[in-house]
Parts: sequence; C-alpha cells; structure tokens
Amino acid sequence: MDLDFKKMDGLVTAVIQDFTSGRVLMVGYMNEEAFQKTVETGFATFFSRSRNKLWLKGETSGHRLVVKEISTDCDRDAVLVRVEALGPGVCHEGFQSCFARRLEDGKWEIREPRVYDPDAVYGSKS
Amino acid sequence: MDLDFKKMDGLVTAVIQDFTSGRVLMVGYMNEEAFQKTVETGFATFFSRSRNKLWLKGETSGHRLVVKEISTDCDRDAVLVRVEALGPGVCHEGFQSCFARRLEDGKWEIREPRVYDPDAVYGSKS
Repeated sequence: MDLDFKKMDGLVTAVIQDFTSGRVLMVGYMNEEAFQKTVETGFATFFSRSRNKLWLKGETSGHRLVVKEISTDCDRDAVLVRVEALGPGVCHEGFQSCFARRLEDGKWEIREPRVYDPDAVYGSKS
Repeated sequence: MDLDFKKMDGLVTAVIQDFTSGRVLMVGYMNEEAFQKTVETGFATFFSRSRNKLWLKGETSGHRLVVKEISTDCDRDAVLVRVEALGPGVCHEGFQSCFARRLEDGKWEIREPRVYDPDAVYGSKS
C-alpha cells in the first residue's frame, strides 16, 4: 500500500464521496497512520493539520464515515474514499456536504438547508 | 472569491468530478492565478507542483475539462469543480479517471480497461 506521502509533508489528500449518491462530502488529509487506521478500522480517519493530531471523523458528533471503497490516483498522492456517512451531515456547520458554497456570479452562495443543528451536536460556540 | 490559499503554500486542493456521472476524475491543486483562469476561461487550470507552473488541463491531449459548477468547502481551502470532460479519459495513463487503482486485500488493483492509448496522445516515452 505504497502511497506517496513525501509530496505534501507526510500527507495525502483524501476525497470523501458518498457511496450511494456520489456527492463529494469533504476533503481531508491523511498521514500514513491515519490511512492505516482508516483501512484497519473501516472508519475514515484523518490527520488534522490545525490540531496536529489524528482525527477520527465523528469522534465528537457520532457522524462517522464507514469506508466502502478506497482508490488511489496515478501519482499515489491522493485517495478517494467512498463512504456511507452515518448521521445527517458531514459538515460541522450542519450541512450534508462541506461543499455547500457554490460560486454564482463571483460570490459563494449557500443554496441548501442545514440538515442538523451544529450547536446541538458540537455545543454552542457563543 | 476569498479562498484560503495560505494553508498549503499558496494552493487550494481542487477535486474534479464528472458533472453527469458523478465520478471523481482527478485531484489537482490551484494557486490563485489558476483558480482565476479556471473561472474566467471555463476550463479547469491547475498549478503543477512538479513543473512549478500553470497547467491548462488538456493543453497537450486536447482533453480539456469544461467547468459546469464550482463549490468550496467550509474552510475555503478546497474547491469542487464539476466538469464535462472532453475526450475519453482524464488520466494520462489512459484511464477515464486517475482513481483507477482500488484497494483490494491490501493491494492496489486496476479493474477497468484503458479508454485511450496514452502513447498515441502524449507520444511514446520509450
């Protein structure tokens, strides 16, 4: 399972796609340990660049990502992880996908409703 | 169009997805100029980290990626570009998608045929 972790300071890009709908849900980054955990546990696990540690997606929210299929690209520096997403939404802002902002006439517009209340899941930040 | 180019040395991750089939075709990286070119021209344009310059996808092969929709994620450090792919395949190895290698029992296996002959398009490397 020789991925190329050298190009990006020990990380590969991980694209998370809904296995059923095909929607791209989020992009994260994995170091070798996170990738191994993802394969071994069957739950998508990332390396958080901001917190500088492993991050099991859903550890707080319960919205885990169940791995159905993993592919890599011709450069072996990115992986595509097709998942079944537990819970209503993957985005910590309450949307189904992190890619909720669409470019329209030069502005990023949100054209979809929140599917859960992030304050109820993650606790209020106010 | 304020994307966060700071997290990854001036780049954002760009996931390219087929607008019709939903297949993830490739992952590239865009600096601000590449992103602007993508928006202005309607053809996906990347920053090549290996060649250290802008790269209009399809400039050699003619297999350009026609932009249909662009989204960004909650961190604004990645974009999802849904495209119509001109030509039979996006991967320079001749496959429809760069993500042709699937993890099966700990090995990366290719289970799909090439859709074009890369030597005929890019010239033989031998």
